[in-house]
Amino acid sequence: MANFDVAQLAHVEMFTPKLEESLNFFTKILGMQISARQGKSVYLRSYEDFYHHTLKLTEGKEAGLGHVAWRASSPEALQRRVESLEKSGQGIGWIDGDLGHGKAYQFYTPDGHKQEILWDVEYYEAPEDQKTLLKSRPQKRPLNGVPVRRLDHVNLMCKDVAKNRQFMDEQLGFKLREHIVLNDNTEIGAWMSVSPLVHEVALMNDQTGSEGRFHHIAFWYGYPQHLMDVADLLVENNIKIEAGPGKHGVSQAYFMYVFEPGGNRVELFGDAGYLIFDPDWKPIVWHEDELEKGIIWYGSPLPTEYFLYGTPDVSSKVLVKE
Amino acid sequence: MANFDVAQLAHVEMFTPKLEESLNFFTKILGMQISARQGKSVYLRSYEDFYHHTLKLTEGKEAGLGHVAWRASSPEALQRRVESLEKSGQGIGWIDGDLGHGKAYQFYTPDGHKQEILWDVEYYEAPEDQKTLLKSRPQKRPLNGVPVRRLDHVNLMCKDVAKNRQFMDEQLGFKLREHIVLNDNTEIGAWMSVSPLVHEVALMNDQTGSEGRFHHIAFWYGYPQHLMDVADLLVENNIKIEAGPGKHGVSQAYFMYVFEPGGNRVELFGDAGYLIFDPDWKPIVWHEDELEKGIIWYGSPLPTEYFLYGTPDVSSKVLVKE
Amino acid sequence: MANFDVAQLAHVEMFTPKLEESLNFFTKILGMQISARQGKSVYLRSYEDFYHHTLKLTEGKEAGLGHVAWRASSPEALQRRVESLEKSGQGIGWIDGDLGHGKAYQFYTPDGHKQEILWDVEYYEAPEDQKTLLKSRPQKRPLNGVPVRRLDHVNLMCKDVAKNRQFMDEQLGFKLREHIVLNDNTEIGAWMSVSPLVHEVALMNDQTGSEGRFHHIAFWYGYPQHLMDVADLLVENNIKIEAGPGKHGVSQAYFMYVFEPGGNRVELFGDAGYLIFDPDWKPIVWHEDELEKGIIWYGSPLPTEYFLYGTPDVSSKVLVKE
Amino acid sequence: MANFDVAQLAHVEMFTPKLEESLNFFTKILGMQISARQGKSVYLRSYEDFYHHTLKLTEGKEAGLGHVAWRASSPEALQRRVESLEKSGQGIGWIDGDLGHGKAYQFYTPDGHKQEILWDVEYYEAPEDQKTLLKSRPQKRPLNGVPVRRLDHVNLMCKDVAKNRQFMDEQLGFKLREHIVLNDNTEIGAWMSVSPLVHEVALMNDQTGSEGRFHHIAFWYGYPQHLMDVADLLVENNIKIEAGPGKHGVSQAYFMYVFEPGGNRVELFGDAGYLIFDPDWKPIVWHEDELEKGIIWYGSPLPTEYFLYGTPDVSSKVLVKE
Repeated sequence: MANFDVAQLAHVEMFTPKLEESLNFFTKILGMQISARQGKSVYLRSYEDFYHHTLKLTEGKEAGLGHVAWRASSPEALQRRVESLEKSGQGIGWIDGDLGHGKAYQFYTPDGHKQEILWDVEYYEAPEDQKTLLKSRPQKRPLNGVPVRRLDHVNLMCKDVAKNRQFMDEQLGFKLREHIVLNDNTEIGAWMSVSPLVHEVALMNDQTGSEGRFHHIAFWYGYPQHLMDVADLLVENNIKIEAGPGKHGVSQAYFMYVFEPGGNRVELFGDAGYLIFDPDWKPIVWHEDELEKGIIWYGSPLPTEYFLYGTPDVSSKVLVKE
Repeated sequence: MANFDVAQLAHVEMFTPKLEESLNFFTKILGMQISARQGKSVYLRSYEDFYHHTLKLTEGKEAGLGHVAWRASSPEALQRRVESLEKSGQGIGWIDGDLGHGKAYQFYTPDGHKQEILWDVEYYEAPEDQKTLLKSRPQKRPLNGVPVRRLDHVNLMCKDVAKNRQFMDEQLGFKLREHIVLNDNTEIGAWMSVSPLVHEVALMNDQTGSEGRFHHIAFWYGYPQHLMDVADLLVENNIKIEAGPGKHGVSQAYFMYVFEPGGNRVELFGDAGYLIFDPDWKPIVWHEDELEKGIIWYGSPLPTEYFLYGTPDVSSKVLVKE
Repeated sequence: MANFDVAQLAHVEMFTPKLEESLNFFTKILGMQISARQGKSVYLRSYEDFYHHTLKLTEGKEAGLGHVAWRASSPEALQRRVESLEKSGQGIGWIDGDLGHGKAYQFYTPDGHKQEILWDVEYYEAPEDQKTLLKSRPQKRPLNGVPVRRLDHVNLMCKDVAKNRQFMDEQLGFKLREHIVLNDNTEIGAWMSVSPLVHEVALMNDQTGSEGRFHHIAFWYGYPQHLMDVADLLVENNIKIEAGPGKHGVSQAYFMYVFEPGGNRVELFGDAGYLIFDPDWKPIVWHEDELEKGIIWYGSPLPTEYFLYGTPDVSSKVLVKE
Repeated sequence: MANFDVAQLAHVEMFTPKLEESLNFFTKILGMQISARQGKSVYLRSYEDFYHHTLKLTEGKEAGLGHVAWRASSPEALQRRVESLEKSGQGIGWIDGDLGHGKAYQFYTPDGHKQEILWDVEYYEAPEDQKTLLKSRPQKRPLNGVPVRRLDHVNLMCKDVAKNRQFMDEQLGFKLREHIVLNDNTEIGAWMSVSPLVHEVALMNDQTGSEGRFHHIAFWYGYPQHLMDVADLLVENNIKIEAGPGKHGVSQAYFMYVFEPGGNRVELFGDAGYLIFDPDWKPIVWHEDELEKGIIWYGSPLPTEYFLYGTPDVSSKVLVKE
């Protein structure tokens, strides 16, 4: 039983072919803070993220996911998960750590997304001029852009959603909160969490048939007005908004999807969503004939590209399966 | 170890000397729904509350708390808690249940607040005309008032905060998230939770020296605009607003406090607050010299009455201790 | 010079083939108030509309515009406008009045929209239980739905925008604030006002080549959150949202378009927009290559139907001109 | 008849003893833009202000009003006002102009506030990198702070409100929209406008008995959320919030009052307020027994200081009249 062994999404590494432009986007428009630079990587966090970083941007040939890191609930929980992962055959092995955290155990999802689990983290310490009297806030609210508050979740494209959903459940204790099941019983989307959030991870069918691609990273505002405010800044600064603001039926999120200059999709999450406290939650099943409202409850529709584009981009390489 | 054995705040019973007027307030202004009436009690829920009821309003001679009910994480967790509570000497015993839930074990906090813990719950089933296509919502969003979304927390006044805080920790697994500690080390406020919410229960020193009184119940909106909207309705309909809207430093809540017609204080929670996912969270200590910003980060100040008035009202019976 | 002779949009009459269903929509969801019923008409107003009514709903065989009524700035201004209208050949003549106002002079726009201009109005007087202490508000804020605050503007479809724009300017003193001019110099949209609002009337090319049709009536919220709130109610109650929420570049309005059950398009205006105080305002010209951002600055796109559907509906009668 | 001869509030000059700190506040927190510096003055504007500047900050020994400038509706209207002002005995005379505008006629209110009226203005021209596709916006929305959108109004403290109200009406065509009249018929507050705004100028009794002082300048957001956002920045950056957010009954404004570092009070206006289109508007009279709701409809109360403090500060010089 992996229940309660994973506590939270700790950080995400993303590759970008345009490091400085990506940085500009995350710092000037989303108000994120740089914690450190090392080699080809820059470490960033939102102003209410407590750890050293929640986003590691690494220069790469093409956009895509580096890895997803989960924090275990305790050193013992970490040990339990590693033992299980080793047996699963999906394990890669321990790394010594990185800036901002200690040793971590790395592994692949069945689809091939690199992930890691860790316990030791370094807490962010604000410099004197950024210390705030609001003691649950690790630093002052930034003066630049419309600052995101915290990392929320990742969405991973999968060739086989069901298999990866089962892995996240069995190996890491993620509970299935909502999923989309077609009439032929194919599962094409799954929203899973280890906390009352509806998801720290979503798994979504890759209609191109590719494996291990990245759909999006989501940062949380919690205030609908902030989506309007940042949309204004995005349009003024030539950042492409793919869709939104709008409200999903699935997960109830008030969303906006944008492309950071490196090509990765970023979701900006504009309300509180709903929270699941019921310990006996029965996963919500969205059937084919319920999908219209499930995908868009109201507001901006999603373009076809939303279901096909992921990073790395394969649009020039594959034909869409009909 | 009580960790994870309690899952959530299930419901609260409040007494009111003016049942029909209280009902009017909760249904017409806060948009709550009546699930059932039985004897001198009416059972209500917010439109995103999943169970049969989250508020039981019972006619009584004076305002005050009936009881607070917690839902265990599993039948086994319930059993563990009951065994521990029996040993603690604070247990009352099992009741067969009530409308909306099965058997529950009742007990008193050291201060004398009646609480219960249970597993079996009845889920709310919407009538045909209230069924919604939004599958994570148990019913349609109501057309009346500015409808609250869900029950959030309770605040209990205590003669001895530290003793009750310790009880909630040891017996029920509540984690201390923030507290206020005076220079003489007296703890005068504690915010505790079993989930990433900063609190499902707050304990607050009763400056009148009374025991077992009730400070407030809180319902959650999650949207700041809703506090403005409902404030308009409250003023138009002669419901007294005690304080707010304003933002606490402690808990970061965007608050408004009002008195329902029966005399109980109700908090309307107007934003998402912040969530605690860190499994190794160190409780935040607010010291005496940090209290000004801790109590009010910005917005409406709290009147003295906020620290003295609770239900039952004792203002005609006791002198305030200086 | 008609400058300053027209003060404001006073009311609009709309036809609906489903009077009771339309009424349900305007009262239960938009929180509008019924002032009177007479014959086949019901008179309604928003809670911050000062006059007897701003919307007259009249049962008719098909949806469409009854008439648009403007209030003159003074009895003398009314007289000046009538003399001019009589000379223009577009005049119909005086009517004795209607519920809520005195005599009015009726006329047609070149496209055939019936309009009237009047001075004498009856002010709404709230019944005792609706009187409010907020003295600039004619009645309490309603408890039902997400109540709109006031009538804002009308949008009229025109076979020839330029000709009608010229008429509104010369006969009624409407100032051109923004317009869309194609590369071949055809004017396909014009936003005009007699106040700092960007428009009390918009004129929009009817791509079906029809004359005298109605595009929409707009009610004002002023708060973005209210579009989200009412969208929720609309979806729950099977009212079709055509587009939005989204922000137009033209006029900067934060819009949502819905169809009331009778088939007329209704715009819900969700922010303050911008105001024009410059007495020497130069009309903004949107050229063909600027239209993308002009039509949608951010948010939900407009469907093709938006540019074709008006009331009365002619979709079964005409072919769209390519 | 001065009706329609004044079109709008053009700009305000304020003195500050701490020019650089004041500038920091207006640019970094309120997101205002510097148009020019000359001598001891800096010229600023909000991002949706169309002219060269709306705020002129001039270094001075103490905080206070420099002057208030009104734009006439036409060159002829300017001429009419000047002739009338000359006859009134309150005229000072013509100045050649200043950065951003041409010749202006200066005069004093009876209380001694310096004002001017002008026609020729210079429009702001954004540099290339600040040009926006939103054609009704003179520049891009700024990336810094929570940017105010436009100058809204001024509030002038008066020894004799009625006399100054009469002057603004007779000499400049300001219409009385709302006022506060005590039981002894003393008028202690008046809100006046030349447009549908409730006020471009408020006159408020100076309870210290001083003459010609300045109460506040107001900048407009139009969005309630922005008051919360900027309040966060203000607290983090040690800018004193005097009161708010809260909603006045008078004028319906959603307000927040802060002190810029130089000591002048600045109001941040957080919603759309209400607009007056009725050409036959009867001024609203707030009587003594209606003042509680008139001053605060809901939200943060006003401290006593609000009614006594103005700039220049006289608190060390005079005794408050009881």
